[in-house]
Amino acid sequence: MATFESAKSASKSLSLSPKSGGKAITHYLPFLDWLVHYRREDLVGDLLGGVIVAIMLVPQGMAYAMLAGLPPQVGLYASIVPLIIYGLLGTSRTLAVGPVAIVSLLVASGVAPLADAGSAEYLQLALTLAFLVAIIQFIMGVVRAGFLVNFLSHPVVAGFTSAAAIVIGFSQLKHLIGVNIPRTHYFYEQVLYAVEHILESNVYTLIIGLGSIAILLYFQYGFAKHLKKTGLSESIIAPVSKSGPLVVVLLGTILVVATNLYDWASVKIVGEVPAGLPPITLPVFDVNVWQLLLPTALAISFVGFMESISVAKSLASKRRQKVDADQELVALGAANFGTTFSGGYPVTGGFSRSVVNFTAGANTGLASIITAVLVAVTVIFLTPLFYYLPNAVLAAIIMVAVFGLIDVKTFKHVWKYNKADAASMIVTFLAVLAVGVETGILVGVAAALALYVWRTSRPHMAEVGRIASTETYRNVERHEVETWPQTVAIRVDESLYFANTKYLEDVVLQMVADKPELKYLVLIGIAVNDIDASALETLKSLNQELRDAGVELHLAGFKGPITDRLKAIGFIDHIGPGRVHLSTHDAMKALGCA
Amino acid sequence: MATFESAKSASKSLSLSPKSGGKAITHYLPFLDWLVHYRREDLVGDLLGGVIVAIMLVPQGMAYAMLAGLPPQVGLYASIVPLIIYGLLGTSRTLAVGPVAIVSLLVASGVAPLADAGSAEYLQLALTLAFLVAIIQFIMGVVRAGFLVNFLSHPVVAGFTSAAAIVIGFSQLKHLIGVNIPRTHYFYEQVLYAVEHILESNVYTLIIGLGSIAILLYFQYGFAKHLKKTGLSESIIAPVSKSGPLVVVLLGTILVVATNLYDWASVKIVGEVPAGLPPITLPVFDVNVWQLLLPTALAISFVGFMESISVAKSLASKRRQKVDADQELVALGAANFGTTFSGGYPVTGGFSRSVVNFTAGANTGLASIITAVLVAVTVIFLTPLFYYLPNAVLAAIIMVAVFGLIDVKTFKHVWKYNKADAASMIVTFLAVLAVGVETGILVGVAAALALYVWRTSRPHMAEVGRIASTETYRNVERHEVETWPQTVAIRVDESLYFANTKYLEDVVLQMVADKPELKYLVLIGIAVNDIDASALETLKSLNQELRDAGVELHLAGFKGPITDRLKAIGFIDHIGPGRVHLSTHDAMKALGCA
Repeated sequence: MATFESAKSASKSLSLSPKSGGKAITHYLPFLDWLVHYRREDLVGDLLGGVIVAIMLVPQGMAYAMLAGLPPQVGLYASIVPLIIYGLLGTSRTLAVGPVAIVSLLVASGVAPLADAGSAEYLQLALTLAFLVAIIQFIMGVVRAGFLVNFLSHPVVAGFTSAAAIVIGFSQLKHLIGVNIPRTHYFYEQVLYAVEHILESNVYTLIIGLGSIAILLYFQYGFAKHLKKTGLSESIIAPVSKSGPLVVVLLGTILVVATNLYDWASVKIVGEVPAGLPPITLPVFDVNVWQLLLPTALAISFVGFMESISVAKSLASKRRQKVDADQELVALGAANFGTTFSGGYPVTGGFSRSVVNFTAGANTGLASIITAVLVAVTVIFLTPLFYYLPNAVLAAIIMVAVFGLIDVKTFKHVWKYNKADAASMIVTFLAVLAVGVETGILVGVAAALALYVWRTSRPHMAEVGRIASTETYRNVERHEVETWPQTVAIRVDESLYFANTKYLEDVVLQMVADKPELKYLVLIGIAVNDIDASALETLKSLNQELRDAGVELHLAGFKGPITDRLKAIGFIDHIGPGRVHLSTHDAMKALGCA
Repeated sequence: MATFESAKSASKSLSLSPKSGGKAITHYLPFLDWLVHYRREDLVGDLLGGVIVAIMLVPQGMAYAMLAGLPPQVGLYASIVPLIIYGLLGTSRTLAVGPVAIVSLLVASGVAPLADAGSAEYLQLALTLAFLVAIIQFIMGVVRAGFLVNFLSHPVVAGFTSAAAIVIGFSQLKHLIGVNIPRTHYFYEQVLYAVEHILESNVYTLIIGLGSIAILLYFQYGFAKHLKKTGLSESIIAPVSKSGPLVVVLLGTILVVATNLYDWASVKIVGEVPAGLPPITLPVFDVNVWQLLLPTALAISFVGFMESISVAKSLASKRRQKVDADQELVALGAANFGTTFSGGYPVTGGFSRSVVNFTAGANTGLASIITAVLVAVTVIFLTPLFYYLPNAVLAAIIMVAVFGLIDVKTFKHVWKYNKADAASMIVTFLAVLAVGVETGILVGVAAALALYVWRTSRPHMAEVGRIASTETYRNVERHEVETWPQTVAIRVDESLYFANTKYLEDVVLQMVADKPELKYLVLIGIAVNDIDASALETLKSLNQELRDAGVELHLAGFKGPITDRLKAIGFIDHIGPGRVHLSTHDAMKALGCA
């Protein structure tokens, strides 16, 4: 089966780069691709996906709007136009765009210091935030800056998400216990206030909230299993088991209407939700306001994109499809432009709804458009139904949604695997709780980069010796090997660059100072992928220092490209003839040790 | 000659770490070591080194004090007590401590915005700066933070030094042309001012200045050669050829005294330099002042330490001696405490004087103490001689000293070797000129780290094929190799960590999307030195995505410790039995390709 290919044809047949060369029109307008190839059998999946996501999205949209400090209809408005735009421009066929918890929290933390929650100004600032996010994401997509999200490491994201989930969950406590907890800058102040005022809880509100949580947890963790035992088909189980939020909304509303709790027991309800299609809205065009909102807009752009691209990629690969990070940024940017001008607030691709959409069988962006139409129908005709909906039910929906984001398992896993990674996770987690979500994630990214540089700044180095009568050389501390009094061979397990090159020099010079009989020092570079200009300088001075001390420096096993560059810059001539060896064994033979 | 050692004895006989275990009293008081072992024959070298350094230091000390905006005697005071303290506590036997150009520039740029040059307040702030530097360096030494200096990469240091040399050299132009150029925040403003007022130059001052420069350049580049031709011994040539500054000081003073130029031609002279030993002085104890000076103090601590440790290490290794970075910080910190309380300003080990000290044959810290005594004698008895010394001569001394620091050679070299390194050098150079010395170096460090992370975030990856009927596998784009339709083998030439792991995933998934017939993907890890928690997560999801797409992931050639950790965390079980191979060839045999 083997075929022989010359270098050229091989490199043509497979480019080792994630980007392909020329772009077709379908790259920029991905819907042309699925529209042209649309098959009748795709429709069933798209319809099912669209309907189930709509069922989840209506209560979630209202709840997340409340989390963001906005009226409930804003969450519904944000679930119409952006979904249509993403459905047309997105490269993921199954991503469900709309309001999500973390972005809503970021909106609240960015806008609350500037305006009173619920005021017209607050709404305007949220729109402006969406506008800035749209611009940032769009530009990032155009300049192909999608890779930047890679600098958010997994432990940092996990630490951030867990802490944000706690902050979000806690922010809903006031609705759950019916006590107004003032928003303060520091999280711990809110916790202290809540503890002090816990006895003032409204019992009826609390019962509705806890009851909703119990029902939601049952739907999430037990209902599907029970349904399966009844032998129902998956296409019925899927929508039914995902309708938990809808069920608690209905039950909560019915309970309040039947008992007048809102009246004699002061249970807070949603109140009037305006009916009709989203209004046409404009952001604030004021550079000073933009400057104030910019840090939050950047945080939303990055964090929102990260959540979106993770789920989009993971779902696409299951069907051997591809998402394009830069086009995704363009599509999300366009969706945020849409939300800006149709009364919404910042949106992104959400994790849970996308998984549901995928599982229900959505095949194309049409599923997203169907969801949008259903939400629009709800906004036009069904808003009176939400009048008596207790806030505690929406709070319960948020709390259960974010509960699963508190990621103790990942922490344990990372702790076991790598303490440095665990450290960056803890730092991020504590920073988010201590200084807030936006600064917290920056602290986390900085900590992760610092730890990476720190780790590579003290590379693993091993003195190696020869395993008797073989050509194999291994760490003297791990294996029974032959060593020599006048020759030392050291393997460096890291690329040499400015942060670790002095460490290498220290280790080698210490060794020379410790071993007065040393004549030959062999540096083994099989694991060295790069040598930067600082490392080259250090190698030069190391060579000079060794020469001054009467020790010959030899190089063994460095890669072809590195040796080529060292030769071009004159370093190979600098250290002298016969000092560079293809392998450790070659070097040892040359030095009379093997 | 070969000996066999067990793992334990090998690890005892040679520790691959630059630090040794227990510390003797001589570690903290290094002078005990040389004092106890002092030999009569050491004295000749120490005397010669001490005398020559003193000859250089007296004019340089006054000139650098002027550069720092301080009266000339402050430079002399800073050359007495600190030298004695370093001589006792320093681990370098030949480092010459005292005022240096870059630290003087940093003092000027930090203190000038806060007080008028020459005022009593200015002097107090310079003392306070020395006090803060002393505290920072001392603490850094005690907590063993000497390694931090490694994060200053060679190109960043070269870019910084070149730009600082230009700033320093330019700052002396006003003394050379006799025109007062006001100090402004931005360098370009001063350049513009100088260009506008160049025609107002004082011709006599200019002649003295240019004449001094000519003499100094001759001493630096031609005199030693001419002396050698006369057959004089090296011990006479060395002090004579280094006495250029002393010679221009004497000639300039004689000229002014003989012609009264200071009177009828307004040539600026040093004026009265108070005679007598350094006064006892105190820094300002005011937290607000400390806060204002802290950024400058940090810059001086780092940059000063970096200059000092570089030359100390390079000189020590020539004699198979060692310097200890942390004890060096303690010694420099102590020297700065000394300068604080004896009327000086911040000091560090200087490059040129240390090399001269070493070359002249200095053997112990006694050389440094001899220099201090000679400077003290000068301050007590010889200051009247400096009254008629023209400022232009001191300016010429500074200009010639920093001229050699403009490092075009390194730039060309780095540019040829590595464009990314050259970029960080240019960025640092321009940043220092554009935003000043302190912010400039921070920008440079950040740029170097960002470029390093950027470079490792797009690792080199190569698809490999088999060189016909061998066990060798090479890059398909470089070699004529055998490949297979259903199997792809990819070698990653970088440690896998959060910043590059998504890139790897993209490349692999793109390949899967491009090659529908693909069944087996072999990831070759011989050049992978680490896999962090994010990379582990990506490998897991990659494995899942490949499985979903009907492709088997195999690992080949990963190092023992990495495979051990992957096994411990359950990843090896996760990808399934028979998927991990010791070498590429083993993998290919298992997959029926070899």
